[in-house]
Parts: sequence; structure tokens; C-alpha cells
Amino acid sequence: MRTETKETLKTITTATITMQLLKRGVKNTYMRGVRALNPMQVGERMVGVAYTVRFIPMREDLFDLALLGSPENLARRAIEECPAGGVMVIDARGAADCGTYGDILATRLKIRGVEGVVTDGGVRDAVEIGVIGLPSFAAGPAAPASPTEHVPVGLNEPVACGGVAIYPGDIIVGDSDGVVVIPPALADEVARDGAEQDGIENFIQKLVASGRPVIGTYPPDDGIRKEYADWVAAGKPDL
Amino acid sequence: MRTETKETLKTITTATITMQLLKRGVKNTYMRGVRALNPMQVGERMVGVAYTVRFIPMREDLFDLALLGSPENLARRAIEECPAGGVMVIDARGAADCGTYGDILATRLKIRGVEGVVTDGGVRDAVEIGVIGLPSFAAGPAAPASPTEHVPVGLNEPVACGGVAIYPGDIIVGDSDGVVVIPPALADEVARDGAEQDGIENFIQKLVASGRPVIGTYPPDDGIRKEYADWVAAGKPDL
Amino acid sequence: MRTETKETLKTITTATITMQLLKRGVKNTYMRGVRALNPMQVGERMVGVAYTVRFIPMREDLFDLALLGSPENLARRAIEECPAGGVMVIDARGAADCGTYGDILATRLKIRGVEGVVTDGGVRDAVEIGVIGLPSFAAGPAAPASPTEHVPVGLNEPVACGGVAIYPGDIIVGDSDGVVVIPPALADEVARDGAEQDGIENFIQKLVASGRPVIGTYPPDDGIRKEYADWVAAGKPDL
Amino acid sequence: MRTETKETLKTITTATITMQLLKRGVKNTYMRGVRALNPMQVGERMVGVAYTVRFIPMREDLFDLALLGSPENLARRAIEECPAGGVMVIDARGAADCGTYGDILATRLKIRGVEGVVTDGGVRDAVEIGVIGLPSFAAGPAAPASPTEHVPVGLNEPVACGGVAIYPGDIIVGDSDGVVVIPPALADEVARDGAEQDGIENFIQKLVASGRPVIGTYPPDDGIRKEYADWVAAGKPDL
Amino acid sequence: MRTETKETLKTITTATITMQLLKRGVKNTYMRGVRALNPMQVGERMVGVAYTVRFIPMREDLFDLALLGSPENLARRAIEECPAGGVMVIDARGAADCGTYGDILATRLKIRGVEGVVTDGGVRDAVEIGVIGLPSFAAGPAAPASPTEHVPVGLNEPVACGGVAIYPGDIIVGDSDGVVVIPPALADEVARDGAEQDGIENFIQKLVASGRPVIGTYPPDDGIRKEYADWVAAGKPDL
Amino acid sequence: MRTETKETLKTITTATITMQLLKRGVKNTYMRGVRALNPMQVGERMVGVAYTVRFIPMREDLFDLALLGSPENLARRAIEECPAGGVMVIDARGAADCGTYGDILATRLKIRGVEGVVTDGGVRDAVEIGVIGLPSFAAGPAAPASPTEHVPVGLNEPVACGGVAIYPGDIIVGDSDGVVVIPPALADEVARDGAEQDGIENFIQKLVASGRPVIGTYPPDDGIRKEYADWVAAGKPDL
Repeated sequence: MRTETKETLKTITTATITMQLLKRGVKNTYMRGVRALNPMQVGERMVGVAYTVRFIPMREDLFDLALLGSPENLARRAIEECPAGGVMVIDARGAADCGTYGDILATRLKIRGVEGVVTDGGVRDAVEIGVIGLPSFAAGPAAPASPTEHVPVGLNEPVACGGVAIYPGDIIVGDSDGVVVIPPALADEVARDGAEQDGIENFIQKLVASGRPVIGTYPPDDGIRKEYADWVAAGKPDL
Repeated sequence: MRTETKETLKTITTATITMQLLKRGVKNTYMRGVRALNPMQVGERMVGVAYTVRFIPMREDLFDLALLGSPENLARRAIEECPAGGVMVIDARGAADCGTYGDILATRLKIRGVEGVVTDGGVRDAVEIGVIGLPSFAAGPAAPASPTEHVPVGLNEPVACGGVAIYPGDIIVGDSDGVVVIPPALADEVARDGAEQDGIENFIQKLVASGRPVIGTYPPDDGIRKEYADWVAAGKPDL
Repeated sequence: MRTETKETLKTITTATITMQLLKRGVKNTYMRGVRALNPMQVGERMVGVAYTVRFIPMREDLFDLALLGSPENLARRAIEECPAGGVMVIDARGAADCGTYGDILATRLKIRGVEGVVTDGGVRDAVEIGVIGLPSFAAGPAAPASPTEHVPVGLNEPVACGGVAIYPGDIIVGDSDGVVVIPPALADEVARDGAEQDGIENFIQKLVASGRPVIGTYPPDDGIRKEYADWVAAGKPDL
Repeated sequence: MRTETKETLKTITTATITMQLLKRGVKNTYMRGVRALNPMQVGERMVGVAYTVRFIPMREDLFDLALLGSPENLARRAIEECPAGGVMVIDARGAADCGTYGDILATRLKIRGVEGVVTDGGVRDAVEIGVIGLPSFAAGPAAPASPTEHVPVGLNEPVACGGVAIYPGDIIVGDSDGVVVIPPALADEVARDGAEQDGIENFIQKLVASGRPVIGTYPPDDGIRKEYADWVAAGKPDL
Repeated sequence: MRTETKETLKTITTATITMQLLKRGVKNTYMRGVRALNPMQVGERMVGVAYTVRFIPMREDLFDLALLGSPENLARRAIEECPAGGVMVIDARGAADCGTYGDILATRLKIRGVEGVVTDGGVRDAVEIGVIGLPSFAAGPAAPASPTEHVPVGLNEPVACGGVAIYPGDIIVGDSDGVVVIPPALADEVARDGAEQDGIENFIQKLVASGRPVIGTYPPDDGIRKEYADWVAAGKPDL
Repeated sequence: MRTETKETLKTITTATITMQLLKRGVKNTYMRGVRALNPMQVGERMVGVAYTVRFIPMREDLFDLALLGSPENLARRAIEECPAGGVMVIDARGAADCGTYGDILATRLKIRGVEGVVTDGGVRDAVEIGVIGLPSFAAGPAAPASPTEHVPVGLNEPVACGGVAIYPGDIIVGDSDGVVVIPPALADEVARDGAEQDGIENFIQKLVASGRPVIGTYPPDDGIRKEYADWVAAGKPDL
């Protein structure tokens, strides 16, 4: 992802991104049952490149608690391998009642420059992670440690998260409306056209706030687009 | 709805309203899976008259993105037709993972004097709508635009929302405990008796806070009602 | 529960407690679908001894609203019988859309020294209960009074709550990650070893925050345990 | 239950019974998620008096497989205590993926004259139980033995099964449309009026099969009731 | 729908129809949670034109059992108005535990030449309807009469059924794999190309049964299409 | 798997197998939401070695219908690579409303000596597959072709199916009660002890059918085991 694209994506909403993708025929991009773990403000946003971890159910004949600390433990390797600028995307099969990571791992990811974490499972130490400041999206808080229910079996494979396909290298964006995936080949144009869409929608928002009806104004037709261009050309005066 | 009834309903909780309706044999009045989109304070409340919008699933042979901006688009017409003092109630069949409206439409509704919106689907720009200040109740935030999943097919018909029947003209009340419907023919008496119930319950709350047990105090029997009447007659002295 | 155990449990997270129980072979201890009704801060925690109430669906031939205020009403008796230091655990079969108690009952429990309430059903007057300050964990707010859907039929029996078995006398702990049960026979050792675990994890958290990788650090091996012991012996100097 | 009532109930459908109960204001009588485990024919029906068993989740600190065979095991006691003419109703909290009984216990119940079993959980050896011939209603087949998930904690208490309240002594009727409960005080009149309803509906069925429209025919008005009475008086001639 | 199209559709599977629609970009055509109420054989199939009925939840202040028999009752009118050759499609919001029709109404529909019924709710007298021989697709059997839960409010409107949009006049096809909708404008070509697809797939089935691998055979490439054409030209000799 | 073990496993029920595994501490072995697609008789059973296929959601930017017939299509490769004696286990994330295979692929698997298929998704041509005679376990029939919802991304990896971990090489057994997995290292002993358990349970079944109570008989104590040994030694005379 180009730096400029990343910077632009930080300024546009996931709502706008899904619309840009829908216009390009890509519909299944919004993760279901996945929310910001701690409240996010208007304009706060996570953007990064997907690094995936896949969990499957734990089986008692194959698991020993001693494995948790082993260097071979894939969950530990993932924490050290997810690159700076990455977003760790965890396929937890929607198992909301069991954690997939907690505050110590969140601290390490933060230190290593990882942008955030997305899981369709639960997260331990949810409020503590808010203090640490690692953007986190999940099915919700959940106290139990991951081996209570599942174990990691694959790193950086194509996975499902929140009912959406995530491939390593996909662009992940999360804000207060949730998390979406952008196919990397579309990232530049989605960023460019999304910024354009957000620009004109902010203008429309001002028009509507000043009394314009939505019919004939939103979504914008050619007339509104002209009005917008004129307004931009005029230096965006107060409306 | 009479102005006085509306003012009274703004002061009584949805919990009290469901009890008043239950006493009158009307049980299925509380919407399931529908919550305040942004936190509400004690005493904050939305009251208005139902104007309904019905969505059904989108079918690819019948939909074109260009329709979104058409004046015939029912979702647009609804925004302009929902009357001041109304509450827009959207039947989204519980589809929580797709938006039914966003910040521009919310702004227009606010400007037009609409009291709020209720949907059993999702809402785009959820945090932004909190800033706009339009009371909104939904299954939660959801980034995708409505045509990702559904399209409006009917305005101001009887609909289902959150598992409850809503007819145009019904009275809708929402607060931090959720959303209830009041049959219009019952609105005056529910408001009157609900205010009475809230008055005596506030008195009981004071009694209990000062050490009274609940048995013999709550729900109130004739003795407590007498005590309450005396206390009111005495000018509601400190307890 | 010994006072010292209770004090210790107030300082350790539910995440740590589930790990201590998992190490002892007790897996099904975390309630599913049950959350703090009002936001909790880091370190805020409810600890108490389980007193149970069991609801089953209401049947119209057996119920009369007049029973609500009767001294024989089990829900009323429960409010007066749940002991100081207790946590009232309500088996509501996961019925999230109907209340099991409200602000007046919460006030009485608070006055009587009850530590808090856990229900896998709904709660009326949810925000008001936050003001009252009774720790409450539930499936969420719900306006309807309990007889809309269910009635109490048993006090202080073994019950299911959030998919977990709760026996009278069990130890209940709730914080921002949710609610767990501790078998009373294990409470002392879980408190002791949990405090030890939290101590070393706080130390590891500092190490990781200062740049240590998680592999070789967390979970702690003998080397880290030695480092921790030395650090404690040195009076916990800044890292 | 009087013998005559039982014989009559064996001839009327659960659909008719729910209508008779609805007319008497008793609505929540049909178990949800509970089906005949093996196909039933038109007219095949189970009728008996409820004897209840309540399961809660298993907790590892309290369970030992050796308990399964103990005489104190409530599941074993239930098999010997459920009376001839009884229907064993098992509250399994809707846990469909774990058995609550299997073919040996079914054989014993059959031998002892028990009329059948209803559970909102799973049943082991489902096809074998069809061969044994004990009417069984459940969420479906499930191979795992009950302690995989839950243990019995109460016999002949009020319970919930399939979302319906069942009290010991209630009348249980099951056929190919599912299972309903009849309050014992209403059994005689429901049987009597249900038989009457089924009689007239069978007559209407003949009328409709011969070409009558449903409007004006069904549900029957006074005219149809007169026609029916005449037809009965005439010895029910072919239509 | 042309007679020839209807005859052709009777010979092709719903699996083939969904593939033909997918190739045309129409994806959401298969009803979820809707199954044949009674077992269907290979080749047995229902084909007809959609006539819709919409139910919403019942509200106690608006319903009286006496309305059930009224000529104004929409459920009764629907039974008389659904045309011969039609398929009655009932939007029951997925309420599986309550009936939407039963054996008398099924008899009348059968007599009137209606092709069958589809509902995403329950059906009373399920086994009896199998004897009557009206093709019926539903969420399953359910004993309770419809007003226990819902009432009809609209006839022949656009509705949702099993998560799919159904407009009056749509073509409905149901078999042992479930129910699909065909947009009427596409019916002729779907029938024609579906028959072609089924023809070649039957040929491939024979090839595979005689030992051919699927790679290079299925789905058919140009070579297989040529082989098929030759085989047809040769009079479909045994393989 | 040794031939003798396979032969033995064909004679013991999945209910018995789960009990043998439970005794060895392996609890999560029974697939949830997965049933025999066509009715199975008493004693009919599928036994084989797991070969896995993993699907994730389809993404429109990555899929083209033309890929369906490509030799690189993993679903096609899987059909040719799953070995004779294998059971194809498909991780479909529980997506019941979309097919994962159909009759042509089933025919090829049957021809190639594959023992059967298990998927937690849907199956096309469900009744036809019953005629073909390939044992199949699934969430149910579903007409839509797999790319409507998902695409295969991995062969013979560890996967989740019906909430259970399946590793390539695991032993899979399915009968009318559902599907279980046996860790290969335990297969011999589970077969041996399961056969012993079934032998004694068949004896107990005869005792109970002749009037013995279950307490003191089932589960068997040492006395019953002695009785059973004597009965076997005596040549299993009629009871």
C-alpha cells in the first residue's frame, strides 16, 4: 500500500469505502459481528495490511498447556512476525466467548508497530487494551484463554473473519462503524474516489444542515457536483 | 397524540410503559434487538408518532445503483415525507450487518423536526449521528449502504420491527432501556397512569433507600398508596 | 470465603481466574452472553457468594399480576433473603428481551449489602442502576417487567446461568471482561496463585513495554520467574 | 387425568389443542425446537402426565464418570420413578448436541409403562428407539452421552422445556406437529371441546374437498354448525 | 409463464436453476430455512406463479379471535384469491414455531388448482397435508394457529420469504433441495438453458459413472460439449 | 487404520465411540449441526480416514465462474485426490444455505472408493445422492452452487467441521446419530473397548427388556460384568 493511499484511507469512513467497493462489484467486504472493542471517536481509524492467524477448535488429545509458552506456538510466532504496518486478522470462527489475545500480546504488537488487531472471537483484558491504545476489533470481551476453546494452526493463509474472505496483503480499515477489507489492487482508486465522495458528502451535509431537501441533493447528481466544484473553486466559503 | 400526553410520556420510562400496557393485556410492545445507537442519560427520551418504511432483500435483476438518487427511491421519499413529530420506524427484518440510513439523511430528518429513527437493521455513520443529535435506535452500527442487502418497497404500511407490530400512527417511545410502541387509543391513559406509577415508584425508591424492605412496599399495596398520598399532600417532604 | 481470599480476588482479573481454573481442569466457568450493564474501569471488580434464583416461562393459567406484590412472590423473597456479601445469580434461560429486576430492587439489594447481581436475562432501568451503583451483569437492558415472559420458581438451587452451572455458595467474580464462577473449594488457591500470576504478568508487561519479545518471555519460563523473583527482591525498581 | 379424557386426547391433534387453549387465554403451550424423533403417522399420538427432570451444565470439579452408574444418579432414579402413564419431560436448556437418554433407558421406560419422553436436548440411539417403539420428542439425535455437557439436578420440579413451562402433573400431548402442554384443570374441557372442534372440522374438510369455499365455511359460523348438526343427526351420510 | 416454460421447469432441478441465475448475475434466489414439508422423490417438483401474503406480529389490542372467520380476514381472502397455477408465498418473518395454514386451507387450495405453498413460518397438520397432496415448503410443522403469533396485513405485495425478495408474478420452483425464485423476464431462457445444462450433466453423470475423472469432464469444456453433441446425434446410445 | 479396526468400527455406534473417547479425556469429538443427508438404518455406518477441504467466503474480485472447471480448482482436485478409504471432510463454516458438492462429484467419489463425505455446509442434489449411495452428512440440502457463497482454499490441512477439529488422517465415523472423529492413535483401543461396551450393552438391553431395573444394571457394575461373562461363556443363550 502506498503511503499516500494509507494516509488518504485514514480520512475516509468505512461507510464510504463499502460504497466505493459496491460500485466496483465487490460486495462482501464488511465483517459481521465485529466491533471496536473500545469506543472510537469521529475520525479515528485503523488502516493496515492483513497478516492472518487461523484458529480451529482445541482437541484434548493434541493440546498441553505447556505448549502455550513454546516458541513453536503459532500464536506466539504470529505476535513476533506480524509486520509493522500490519493488521493482525484472526479467524476464530465467531467463537465470541473465548479470548484470542490479551494485554501482554497487545503491548508487544503496539511496540512492534502493528496497526491493530481484528478477530471474530473474543479478547481478554479488553479495557486494559484500550489503555494500551492498540486499535482492536472483536466480537467482544471474553475472559477465558484461547486454549479453552481453540488453537492456532496456520499463519498468513487465506482465512474467513466475520464472514468475509481475508487474504494476506489485503488492506484492512476499521472505525466506529466496523471493519472492511479492500482488495489491494483496488486500494488506490478506492482511496482516491472515496476521498472525493467524502468531500462532496461533507458539502452536501452542510447544504442539508442549512435546509436543502435530500431529493435532488443526495446522492449527488450532476447539478450538485457542479455546485460542489464551484464551492471548492471559491475556496470553500461558509454555507 | 395530544401535546400534554407527549409531554407526560417524555417523563416516564419505557419500563413503566410496558407495565401499563401489560395491565391492559397488550404484551408484545418491546422491540427485540434494538438499542440506543449512542448512550442515553437518565431521563433522556424520544417520543413521536410512527411513520414506517419497509425493506425487503435486494434482487440483482431489479436493482441499479443509479436508483439510489432517484426521486422515486422510496428511502428518499420517506426522508421528506416523515412528518415533524414523527418517528421513522424501519422494518429491516433484523438485518444488523447492513445500513438503513446514515448521517446526511439523519441531518435532514433532524432539520425537518422528526423526533428520531428506529430500525431493526444497522445504521451507517453511527457516531456521527450522535453528534448530529438525532435519537436513533438500531441493531447497531453497520458500514455497508442499504442496497448491499435490501431495498425499500413500502411507506407507511403496517410493519414488523424488532418482532413487534407497528402501524402508522402508533406512539413510539425510546430510552436507554429500548423502544416500545403504545397503541394510540391507549396513549392518554398510559401516560396518565404511567406518571402516577412513576410518582409512587419514586416515593418507594426513597423509602427503600432509607431502609424499607421490598415485601410490603413494592409493588405498592393500599397502605403504601395511602402513605404516598399523605406524603404528596404534605408537600413531598424529605424522607 | 475467607476475607483475605475475597480481598485478593478483588485484585485479580477474570482472565487470570479462568486460567487458574483451566490449569486445575475446570473449564466451563465463564458465563456466555453476560456483560457488565454499565461500563467498568480497570481494576473495578465484583466478588461475592452465589445466591440463586430460577425463572421459568410464565403460563397464563397460573399467573396473575396481583401475585407480583405478594410476600410469597419468590422474586420478592429473594431480594430480602440474598445475604450481605452475596451475589444474586438469576437463571433467566438467556431471555434477553425481558427484565428480571429493576431500580427499586437494586436499591434494596445495595442497602442490604449484596455485592451485585448476575442474570443471563435482561434488566430494567439499566442506566438508573448504574447511578445506584449496584454492580450488575446481564444480557442487556430490557424494559418489560419479568412476568411478561417468566416467573421465579426456585431459590438457592443449582442453576444454569450463561451456560455455566452455579451452585449456592459458589464464588462469583465479575469485571469488564465478564463473569466467572470459582468452586468454593478452589477459591483460596485460585486467589493465591492468581495473585502470583498477576504479579509476574505485570512484571512481564513492563518488560514487553520496554521492548522484550514475547517468545521466551510470555508465558513465563523458569528464567523469567527467576528474573521476577530478583526484581521483587530488589524492591521492584523501575524497568 | 380421567381415562376418558386421555382416550379423547389421543384422537385430537395438537393443532386443535393449541386452539382450544388459545380460546381460554393460555398461549405459551407449544414447545419450540422439539420434534418427533422418528416419523409419526396421521392419528398417532402420545398422551401422558408430566414427570420432569432438570439438567444443568456439567462442571468438571463436581463430576466423575463413576457417578453415572450410582443409584444416587438422578437420571437413573428418574427412569425408575417416572410413573406408568407418565411422560418424562427433560429440561436440557435446548442443548441439541448432547444426548439426554438412549436405547437402554428407553427400553426400561417402555417396559415400565411410561407413555413417552420429551426433551429439548438430544437423544442417543435415535433410530434404535424408533424400533423399541417409545414415543420420543427431541431437538434431534445426538451421539454424546449426557455428562459431556450436563448433569441432572432436580426431579419433578417446575421446569422449562422448549420455551414452555412444565409443572409436574401437567398433561403432555405429542404428535407429528410437535408437543403441547395442557394445564390439568383444563384437560377435560379441552378434550371435550377439542373433539367437537375436530368433528366439525372433519365435516368442513369434506365440504371443502367437495368444492365449498373457505369464506363462510371455515372457521365455522352458526350456519355451518347447524349444517353439521343436521349431518350428524342424519347419520353422517356421504357428502 | 408460457406453458412450455412451465413444463420444462418441471424437469430441471433447483440446483440447475440457481446456476443459470448465477450466470446471469442473480444470486439471492434460494430461500433459507425453507424445506419440503413432506419427503419428495427425485423428479418431483412444484412450479407456479407467486401470489404473496404478508404476516406481521399479532398485537393484542387489534386482534379478536372472532376475526378469524370474517370474510375480511386476509388469510381467508388469500385462499380464495390465489389463482390456479399460482404458488402462495407467505412472508412469516421466519417464525417457525407458529402455523400459517393447515389442512382445510390446503384442501381448498388444492381444489382450486393452486400449485403449492411456500412459507418461512410453520405449518399445522403437516403430515395430513402430505396426504392431501398439496406441495408445501416451510420452516417445519407447528401446531399453534397463526394468531398465536401473527396476522396477515397484505396480499400480493413484494415480500421477503426465507431471506429472498418475492414479487407477485415471480416464478417459484421447489423440489427436494428447496425453493428458488426466477425473475419472470428470465424464465424462458433459464428453462431453455437449464434443460440444456441438465441434458449435458446427465451425459457427464454417465461418463463419470463409467470411470471418467471430473477434471476435464465437469464442468464441461468444449471437448465434452462436442462429445455430448455427437452422443445426442448418435441417438444417445448406452455408455 | 488397520483393517480389523475399521471392520470393528463399522459395528459400533457413534454413541459408544463418544463414550470411549470421553473416558480417555477427549470430549469435543461430535460434529454439531451435521446429519445424515438421507435416512440410515440401524447398523448402517460410514468409516474412513479424513481428507479435508477448506472453504472461505467468495470475494467478487477474485472469482470468475470460468474457474469452476479449471484443473487448478481445488474442489475438483480434491475429488480426484481424496484416497480410496477416505472420508472427505469439508469445512464450510456452517454455511447451510449453499452447496459444497452435488451428484456428479458424489458419483466420482463413489467410483473412486471414497467412503463418504461430511460437510457442515449444504449439499446439492441431496435425494439423488441417496440413490447414488454415497454416505453423506451435511447441514442439509441446498440448491445453490458453492461459488454463490464460498471457494476452496486449502486441501488436507487441519480444519474445523461442525465445531470439531479435524486433522488429515483422523478416523471419521458416521451413522444415524451423526458424525464423530477418533484420533488415529486411539482408534485401535476405542474399537476394541467399544466393541466390548456394545457387547455388554446389548446383553443389558436384553436384561432390561426382560424386566430388570436400570439401577444396579446400567451402567454395568462388576456383578453385571460377571453375569455377562458367564452368559458369553454359556454361548449367549436366550434370556
